[in-house]
Amino acid sequence: MNRSREPYLLTPGPLTTSLATKSAMLRDWGSWDSDFNELTAGVCRRLLEVARAEETHVCVPLQGSGTYAVEAALATLLPWDGKTLVLMNGAYGQRMARILQYLGRDFETLDMGDYLPPPPERVEVILAADPEISHVAAVHCETSSGILNPLEAIAEVTWRQGRRLFVDAMSSFGALPIDARELPFDGLVSSANKCFEGVPGFGFALLRRKALEQCVGNAHSLSLDLYDQWTYLERSGQWRFTPPTHVVAAFASALEQHAAEGGAAGRLARYVHNETVLVAGMRAMGFHTLLADRWLSPIIVTFHAPGHPNFEFGRFYDLIKQHGFIIYPGKLTQVDSFRIGCIGQLFEEQMRGVLAAVRAALDELDIPDGAPRPEDLDKPEF
Amino acid sequence: MNRSREPYLLTPGPLTTSLATKSAMLRDWGSWDSDFNELTAGVCRRLLEVARAEETHVCVPLQGSGTYAVEAALATLLPWDGKTLVLMNGAYGQRMARILQYLGRDFETLDMGDYLPPPPERVEVILAADPEISHVAAVHCETSSGILNPLEAIAEVTWRQGRRLFVDAMSSFGALPIDARELPFDGLVSSANKCFEGVPGFGFALLRRKALEQCVGNAHSLSLDLYDQWTYLERSGQWRFTPPTHVVAAFASALEQHAAEGGAAGRLARYVHNETVLVAGMRAMGFHTLLADRWLSPIIVTFHAPGHPNFEFGRFYDLIKQHGFIIYPGKLTQVDSFRIGCIGQLFEEQMRGVLAAVRAALDELDIPDGAPRPEDLDKPEF
Repeated sequence: MNRSREPYLLTPGPLTTSLATKSAMLRDWGSWDSDFNELTAGVCRRLLEVARAEETHVCVPLQGSGTYAVEAALATLLPWDGKTLVLMNGAYGQRMARILQYLGRDFETLDMGDYLPPPPERVEVILAADPEISHVAAVHCETSSGILNPLEAIAEVTWRQGRRLFVDAMSSFGALPIDARELPFDGLVSSANKCFEGVPGFGFALLRRKALEQCVGNAHSLSLDLYDQWTYLERSGQWRFTPPTHVVAAFASALEQHAAEGGAAGRLARYVHNETVLVAGMRAMGFHTLLADRWLSPIIVTFHAPGHPNFEFGRFYDLIKQHGFIIYPGKLTQVDSFRIGCIGQLFEEQMRGVLAAVRAALDELDIPDGAPRPEDLDKPEF
Repeated sequence: MNRSREPYLLTPGPLTTSLATKSAMLRDWGSWDSDFNELTAGVCRRLLEVARAEETHVCVPLQGSGTYAVEAALATLLPWDGKTLVLMNGAYGQRMARILQYLGRDFETLDMGDYLPPPPERVEVILAADPEISHVAAVHCETSSGILNPLEAIAEVTWRQGRRLFVDAMSSFGALPIDARELPFDGLVSSANKCFEGVPGFGFALLRRKALEQCVGNAHSLSLDLYDQWTYLERSGQWRFTPPTHVVAAFASALEQHAAEGGAAGRLARYVHNETVLVAGMRAMGFHTLLADRWLSPIIVTFHAPGHPNFEFGRFYDLIKQHGFIIYPGKLTQVDSFRIGCIGQLFEEQMRGVLAAVRAALDELDIPDGAPRPEDLDKPEF
């Protein structure tokens, strides 16, 4: 491993970006200038293209982290008398519920705990029983566990029941297939520094134009008012408030690289290969994935922590970092775990590299293999 | 002029930054990693030092533009039963009032129009007459006109009347003197890409610790809850949601350069020299400043548009841009004007350069000098 370079980030973002993307930040842009307006317009146009949403949706970028975009899109789309069903199986579903508490909007939750997928048939039963529910809020890839939720089936029952769909596609859009012509969503949110491999600093929402047109006055916040951001952008070509110009320029470069790799399909192929190499290599060392194969995503994979008494995550993390890789702690409430990401400028070489670093860390800690505690495997089957 | 380089930005931000600052963005940071936590801690510590606020205040950074930080600080600091007096003489004072409307908090305004300073004695009369007013919100340098408002005197009467002060110091902090031991504020907000000469992507608030401790549950928004951001940062060393890591790294570099230039005093000296060269040169071409000398700031200067019938701002802007400088449009409601900034990595060479570009643009437009229409000068004396 090349230890002289900065560590590779095997995390769900910020992630390792290309030198071309970072180098695009070596220029200062006037945010009022037409050159920058063209950059913004090109970014928005391309994001709509990737989602096949040019005919039906608009793209509204928003300064801040991805969570800002989630809060802003919920606040802008949801009428004050609406009610939302939040599908939760991890931190990001829980965060949407917390946002709705701040917003003072009515909601109920379907909480599947740490990692079980929300069953579409249960969603349908809940919707059928409560006509007051106007919206369903779902997380596509819940990075707490790495689970890929059954979004298409959830969209299907939501549509059949005549409700509106909101999708947190933070860590999936740009790699996993999202086609607005097939997937009937009113709002879908993602950020610059996930599968498009930009640097962090803004998020964006793809919003159904017909829905957004009804949303004047919904938002609770000036900064997070996507209706206001949209109309200002339409009128002037500019963001309402100072945009992160360098981050936007980096993203424009990242989008070109994304297209050159074959768009979402090309990127997905690389991430799937990363995941395959990673999971096979970890299993060969005795590690267990939290999820059964059919729920694994090519975004991030959760592994049970080794059951050996010598294992301590902080020490394990530091040893792997010394080999040039940064992994991610677990975010589960019941099971001791850690996560390794597959996204960013990572290729087979880096995945083999992190596997070697894991092996070296185990050796250093005198842990023979990654086998978890038997009681951690004693979990509901799904 | 060197036209091969990108244009210099003579605007109030984003502004021209140093190559060292931009080059700090050529690395990817893990936002969960201790290396990045140290970066954040160092930035916050240094900002408190610059304001001499280490003993009394905490620094809470916030993803997004400066306006986000204003909204977040107001929402966090103001109790729901408080009432705020907003001092307005331009777009940024008006924006605070608009934010308070979104927040549903009671307020009244002292609106001085486009460019008159809020007289401290009138502020005192209003406060004495209305004991319900709990807070005063003031803009230090109102970049709409470039006026430097009498902040010390406003702080003095606010303190004497037993009310709490909130300061939008967006475009002043880092150059103009701010000393928390002398200036009794509960909250002061600025952003990365003003006088500290970072790149845009986050803002920050200096909040009186004793006041902030009372602010749990005040905020209307999860993303903009500075109490929550603060307690999380204290507990974990991390931002709650993904920070703009590259922008923060650039800011850490910018802060080192700020210190090397002699801190706020050193930077102010350069900006004052820029302003002096600019104003003298523009006046020599017949231009008039909007403001009398005693209200001019070394941040940005507003000039009356030339009264000549050939003058059209868009054309003037483009010609100056061809010479390698981006200036800023006016933001006044009653008077035709434009603005030229003095902040960023600009030195006497660039100020002489923009003067030459203005001269060339006038020549190209066949306008003999910058003299405004006489009726535009017919404004209240102050």
